[in-house]
Amino acid sequence: MNGDTPAREFEIIERVFRRASGRPDVILGIGDDAAVTRLSAGHELVTATDALVCGTHFATDAPPHSVGYRSLAVNLSDLAAMGAEPHWASLAISLPAADDDWLESFALGFFELADKFDVDLIGGDTVCGPLAITVTVQGSVPEGAAVTRMGAQAGDGIYVTGHPGDAVAGRLLLEGELSGGHDADADSFLTRRFLYPEPRIAEGLALRDVATAMIDVSDGLHADLTHLLTASGAGAELDVSQLPLSGELLELVGESQASKFALCGGDDYELCFTAPADKAEAVAKLAEAVGYPIRRIGTVAAAGKIDWQLHGRHYEVPAAGFRHFG
Amino acid sequence: MNGDTPAREFEIIERVFRRASGRPDVILGIGDDAAVTRLSAGHELVTATDALVCGTHFATDAPPHSVGYRSLAVNLSDLAAMGAEPHWASLAISLPAADDDWLESFALGFFELADKFDVDLIGGDTVCGPLAITVTVQGSVPEGAAVTRMGAQAGDGIYVTGHPGDAVAGRLLLEGELSGGHDADADSFLTRRFLYPEPRIAEGLALRDVATAMIDVSDGLHADLTHLLTASGAGAELDVSQLPLSGELLELVGESQASKFALCGGDDYELCFTAPADKAEAVAKLAEAVGYPIRRIGTVAAAGKIDWQLHGRHYEVPAAGFRHFG
Repeated sequence: MNGDTPAREFEIIERVFRRASGRPDVILGIGDDAAVTRLSAGHELVTATDALVCGTHFATDAPPHSVGYRSLAVNLSDLAAMGAEPHWASLAISLPAADDDWLESFALGFFELADKFDVDLIGGDTVCGPLAITVTVQGSVPEGAAVTRMGAQAGDGIYVTGHPGDAVAGRLLLEGELSGGHDADADSFLTRRFLYPEPRIAEGLALRDVATAMIDVSDGLHADLTHLLTASGAGAELDVSQLPLSGELLELVGESQASKFALCGGDDYELCFTAPADKAEAVAKLAEAVGYPIRRIGTVAAAGKIDWQLHGRHYEVPAAGFRHFG
Repeated sequence: MNGDTPAREFEIIERVFRRASGRPDVILGIGDDAAVTRLSAGHELVTATDALVCGTHFATDAPPHSVGYRSLAVNLSDLAAMGAEPHWASLAISLPAADDDWLESFALGFFELADKFDVDLIGGDTVCGPLAITVTVQGSVPEGAAVTRMGAQAGDGIYVTGHPGDAVAGRLLLEGELSGGHDADADSFLTRRFLYPEPRIAEGLALRDVATAMIDVSDGLHADLTHLLTASGAGAELDVSQLPLSGELLELVGESQASKFALCGGDDYELCFTAPADKAEAVAKLAEAVGYPIRRIGTVAAAGKIDWQLHGRHYEVPAAGFRHFG
């Protein structure tokens, strides 16, 4: 970390973020002009960058532990969607003022997830400004093994991991825009799904030889699937009734609203992918291994429209998403 | 670029930033969840991240062309200080609102420098928030060839490229905190040194087999040299009268103030490095090749203090730097 912050702040950052490297492929970590790392032979580098801005991606009073966790999680999710294994992260934080407690809690959340996936923080920058975080993650795939958005073929099944829609419900509960149900545990489950999304790294790796195309669900299932199908030059026929809605979400808002949340809500960081018919069993086995549904929600069609159906009729996906904080 | 910006803004960004990749080692650039790139065999990856915040690192009315240029330049400078060759950049922009003109001018500045050093923009993120830019650059060095801050040895010469101090004078002229001289060309030269710093990439590569330790001058020559010497566990004896001050700077503020600017000003993005006596000729040849001074300003001492002298007396480096914008 080589920021232009005052000396005291610099010391805090050094103390909070500089740790001994755990990975043997980190030759030079935090503390020089740049980091030096080693990529395994026969591998390609996979790089993703995502920024979180206070007031847009998290609330002013968001728990810093969650902000630290999420700032890494949303980036790891991008690597998961490529079928990549994560290795290193760089972190740029803009902070209005030094705040030891906030930074320490942020770092705890960040490193909780980093340690889980053996990701080393190798560098970054700390600057004075409005609260915002940009993380760049680097990982790898064996040569030619990255799963892009471009490979969906007509006839492929369209799948989604986990329970999209939970996260936006959790966010709206936190914002007070949605009233909690009578089940405090369910409310807490949903808010946790927003505050602590689980990047599907293991699933992404397992799907490397299964998926023909893959994307992570950050903007909402419909929007992200549209990105994938557009990149693949394909259309799709989809069934709203097959959306894998969680019991907690259904209980809180009912099936109609829950479907809208899943299609338009975003912040899920689940994986949406396509796979040919002969891989259906491999997908089923993966779902069994991970212990949550990986649901088939439709079929890739030749180039054309993306047709959502519900009980045999066309279903019009709501145009707008759910606004962010602020 | 996969941001959570509205559709129109997304289109602008696609149009402005998505270009055909020029580098054969970019397997997958902008437009997927992550970029995929290939590192040459026998090379190590070098990664640096720097953030620029409006009001801290550039003025609200800063020319967007310069902001685009500088956001890449300050990062390339970090790679130069490692002796690394730059390859790829990722760009996260936080913008309060879509502004076609601003973004197009920003992109022109960014790509002007990117093209000069054959750097491909491989990805990033665009989000809604206060104006700020975070760039991550990736480059490479042959295995073991990175120049760190840690190798300075007692007896090594201490050198600096170019003319430190110009940039802060340029910044203060822009801010109106310093009155222009009678020479408009000289003023324009100095402001340009702030707005368009030249990352010393070729110099860094040439110094790979010459320098024992190296750092780029972003915080001011004294502060950055202190970082280098601390990392090396060394002290130094330095001569203020040897600072390579530009004619333009001397003319504007006189020698005493010019020395303070060089020592404490920052934003120079020159290289400060140490080299053993038997490399003095190599340094001289490099200076001849690049056409500007690479001046020896002192000598590395055993662990101890960093002693600046002027005309045979101790010189007390001013404690504070020059505040940033805002």
